[in-house]
Amino acid sequence: MAAAAAGEEVPNKRVVLRRYVTGFPSEDDMEVVTATARLAVPPGSTAMVVKNLYVSCDPYMRGRMTKHERPSYVPDFVLGEVLVNFGVSRVIASGHPDFKVGDLVWGMTGWEEYTLVPKPESFFKINHPELPLSYYTGVLGMPGLTAWAGFFDVGKPKKGDYVFVSAASGAVGQLVGQLAKLTGCYVVGSAGSDEKVNLLKTKFGFDEAFNYRKEQDLDAALRRYFPEGIDIYFENVGGPTLEAVLSNMRNHGRIPVCGMISQYNLEQPEGVHNLFQIVAKRLRMEGFMVFDYFSEYYKFEEEMVGYLKEGKISYVEDIAEGLEKAPAALIGLYSGRNVGKQLVAVARE
Amino acid sequence: MAAAAAGEEVPNKRVVLRRYVTGFPSEDDMEVVTATARLAVPPGSTAMVVKNLYVSCDPYMRGRMTKHERPSYVPDFVLGEVLVNFGVSRVIASGHPDFKVGDLVWGMTGWEEYTLVPKPESFFKINHPELPLSYYTGVLGMPGLTAWAGFFDVGKPKKGDYVFVSAASGAVGQLVGQLAKLTGCYVVGSAGSDEKVNLLKTKFGFDEAFNYRKEQDLDAALRRYFPEGIDIYFENVGGPTLEAVLSNMRNHGRIPVCGMISQYNLEQPEGVHNLFQIVAKRLRMEGFMVFDYFSEYYKFEEEMVGYLKEGKISYVEDIAEGLEKAPAALIGLYSGRNVGKQLVAVARE
Repeated sequence: MAAAAAGEEVPNKRVVLRRYVTGFPSEDDMEVVTATARLAVPPGSTAMVVKNLYVSCDPYMRGRMTKHERPSYVPDFVLGEVLVNFGVSRVIASGHPDFKVGDLVWGMTGWEEYTLVPKPESFFKINHPELPLSYYTGVLGMPGLTAWAGFFDVGKPKKGDYVFVSAASGAVGQLVGQLAKLTGCYVVGSAGSDEKVNLLKTKFGFDEAFNYRKEQDLDAALRRYFPEGIDIYFENVGGPTLEAVLSNMRNHGRIPVCGMISQYNLEQPEGVHNLFQIVAKRLRMEGFMVFDYFSEYYKFEEEMVGYLKEGKISYVEDIAEGLEKAPAALIGLYSGRNVGKQLVAVARE
Repeated sequence: MAAAAAGEEVPNKRVVLRRYVTGFPSEDDMEVVTATARLAVPPGSTAMVVKNLYVSCDPYMRGRMTKHERPSYVPDFVLGEVLVNFGVSRVIASGHPDFKVGDLVWGMTGWEEYTLVPKPESFFKINHPELPLSYYTGVLGMPGLTAWAGFFDVGKPKKGDYVFVSAASGAVGQLVGQLAKLTGCYVVGSAGSDEKVNLLKTKFGFDEAFNYRKEQDLDAALRRYFPEGIDIYFENVGGPTLEAVLSNMRNHGRIPVCGMISQYNLEQPEGVHNLFQIVAKRLRMEGFMVFDYFSEYYKFEEEMVGYLKEGKISYVEDIAEGLEKAPAALIGLYSGRNVGKQLVAVARE
């Protein structure tokens, strides 16, 4: 492993934030630059240095590109500094007793070739490298755990429940729909192109799917697909979609709130006007964060690896090659350009 | 009991709906008329006839004054027919084995002097007539059970929680605040007049209270009263108050949603723009209805009677005398004219 020679200083390509964003982000809010990295940890430190293989593009990152007055739930990115997010990496130097050179791990890393990780204990070991390593940015990583925890722990599904998933072909949505089918639910998904709708029906086994961009009246569409109403709405988009869904929920329905991507780039988010439905139908709307479920990760990993190996879960990813493509890949999430889980291949080994 | 002589037909004053309402209701949407009532049940029937003593004015009744296209969570009132709501009554004729003449009961009755109740089993017996009977429209009736169930079962309070109650001097709010104090919470209430604010602080033992009509910036007011944020918001009003509260909730906060009185008379309800806070702070917003807790009523009654007799719960009611005053009493709820729980005394015995 030549690149890991102790103390060697190497070029380190990285994606940095050029300016804080208001409204819709653009590629040139970021910049790909080349810095240097030392491939060793300081003597006596418990840090590690990783080589990044895959980094994940996730909708929530938009919030980190804005400077917040009050502290946000995740730290804002730092101007001129490398973007950070979940990724898959190989350890190339370590002062930490639990991580040794060559280990494959996933965790919060930099959008760069090499990252010094001060607190390796926040990383997870990859126990199933026989599956594509990129899966650990998605179905076996943060989005997978998000889908699993949000659907089962927050959604509390029962066999026969009517389930609606928005952004249904995305990293989280495609898994929620399939977990719902495995649970014996009736599942309808919405997505933003006919190609994605086709994927939902043919690849992911949704009972029905529709292209929300082609629906004049989302309320009417939902009434058509759910004549008896919706028991679980897995909320990824917010805004007018949430409003239409609220009118179509059944009594005692549950809305796990994972994200609201339709609102992230608006200077003034859209209002939701029919929250009284929460009373009228005794609904539970509950936000959750994957961080709260990290203690259950290895249990989840085994369960999901089982589904994948048995062919019970299909998975589609959209891989951008190289850090140069990373800014466009991230921006593409907000116009729905990606088909399946968006990630960036930094290095293939 | 002369009035109960079998089969006697007597005049029966009643409040009927004259027209369905859009926007703010007015007194002349209702009309007080005199019909007749038979003070006997049909032979072989299990119905009962009750003499109404107190009827309750509750905010949720506004929804029943509108004609809904899709069925609402409670039936719309019928044009030209008597209004119905919870009330306290004495049985004056009964074909039902569980109810005998002279029994004091509470349940869904008419805004009239005498009501034929086809299904007496929906009524509750009054086990503590040593307390004012009017209490069974409030602290010992539907609003009391609402406060108790919503705060404890939905709110899941812990000692030390920061609790905010809107419409805090109303039938439900005054009880929620006091139950929260009994649980060891820090409680702040908002109300619409200085008189009510004074009541909250002096009579009901809220830690703090404010007049929302005097606050230019509700968000700033909440930041002042809750520098560490809100754990439980007992939601009675909706709209801009909810929006301000969402910005001031703490992580894992809970919002039992009881009602949204500020929105009931608007043709287009106001939008809530910051629902993303539900994700950012992992909030749970949950609607509930007292109907779902009726099976726990007698348990609740004993607990609340205990608090009342020990002086641990204070209770303020606003009694309108006579059915002629009922329309104005009901309308007054929506401008906040009532101080404490609004009800109508139909007959004192």
